[in-house]
Amino acid sequence: MADASKLAITDRTRVRRMPERGAYDREVINAILDEAFICHAGFVTDAGPVVIPTGYGRVDDKLFIHGSAASGMLRSLQQGIDVCVTVTILDGLVLARSAFHHSMNYRSVVVFGKATLVEDVEEKTTALHAISDHIIRGRWQEVRPPTAQELKATTVLSIPLYEASAKIRTGPPKDDASDYDLPIWAGVLPINSHYGEPLSDPKLEDGISVSDSVRSAKR
Amino acid sequence: MADASKLAITDRTRVRRMPERGAYDREVINAILDEAFICHAGFVTDAGPVVIPTGYGRVDDKLFIHGSAASGMLRSLQQGIDVCVTVTILDGLVLARSAFHHSMNYRSVVVFGKATLVEDVEEKTTALHAISDHIIRGRWQEVRPPTAQELKATTVLSIPLYEASAKIRTGPPKDDASDYDLPIWAGVLPINSHYGEPLSDPKLEDGISVSDSVRSAKR
Repeated sequence: MADASKLAITDRTRVRRMPERGAYDREVINAILDEAFICHAGFVTDAGPVVIPTGYGRVDDKLFIHGSAASGMLRSLQQGIDVCVTVTILDGLVLARSAFHHSMNYRSVVVFGKATLVEDVEEKTTALHAISDHIIRGRWQEVRPPTAQELKATTVLSIPLYEASAKIRTGPPKDDASDYDLPIWAGVLPINSHYGEPLSDPKLEDGISVSDSVRSAKR
Repeated sequence: MADASKLAITDRTRVRRMPERGAYDREVINAILDEAFICHAGFVTDAGPVVIPTGYGRVDDKLFIHGSAASGMLRSLQQGIDVCVTVTILDGLVLARSAFHHSMNYRSVVVFGKATLVEDVEEKTTALHAISDHIIRGRWQEVRPPTAQELKATTVLSIPLYEASAKIRTGPPKDDASDYDLPIWAGVLPINSHYGEPLSDPKLEDGISVSDSVRSAKR
């Protein structure tokens, strides 16, 4: 019986190298997608493969990306061509006793599918709200909402989260048995991302303080 | 006359959307490549486009990636197929007064080319040293160097930095003229990456302190 909490493994999503690092659970995949800021979208043009970084948002089992209606990437993708969307969070450098066993701790998700143009204004607005919330929760309610004109100038594409897998490495280095005696420090150097102090727009009018969404922003 | 400090712009590298954000200077491109940790490599398989995160290193005008000889990506790429390698550093969230003008500050590089298998042992060792230095300078000298066996088990590919461009956004939000009067906080929320405290391998023998390369690691 199919397990609804897991995605079916396909030829494209099966993690072949280091299969013990592979994960197909929706929860695991969604948590990585929700934590990262940007994805790298890969698609094929007449001139070969192209990989473009872009923001995104998630609603249930759909990933949304957006951009100017003039964007070359979005115009390509909305033709219904295959896309591969990859999201990577780097957690640390894995420093082994041998050069060979150096590695990184990371959490990544690879999504395969075809993008669909979101034309319905309501779904488009929901998607843009999700993309905004993904970047900084609550900001959407604080700002001027998009006009009909702006909605029209924005292309939103939906990519189904049906064919996806995660790959995760955690923990200390794994050295060769004979290397553990070497007098070499080994371990993990964690990499953390954090927000700096908000920088007000130089054109900000006097007396406007940093908004709630920005003050409470966490990642 | 060709300017050696700038890369020739091609159809693939020309920044079309927001051309003012494009840069083709070798120095600018190299600085971004040297600062980021990982790249996203995109290539085309029978099953469509695939985007994989991986570490890399740079020596002059060559980018090196490496991995197990069993890696599907490396086996594909060493056939001499087209690859697009993209590197992205996220610097901050750009919070405008309107939802529409929200953006991100970032520095990205897109490289197009074909990968070549590095077979010469000396060049392979130089490449692996560069990849190691890219992650953490000086670590290579502290650890057990690769054996002939390990070198053989490692595939190294070289990608020329001839066809590449950078795209950079910096600075505050750009709002519509009529929105500057709105009582909405606007500005930039910087994103910083930093190292946490080194975590020693639980299997580390007593009396081995954190090595110089790790203590002096900076990004």
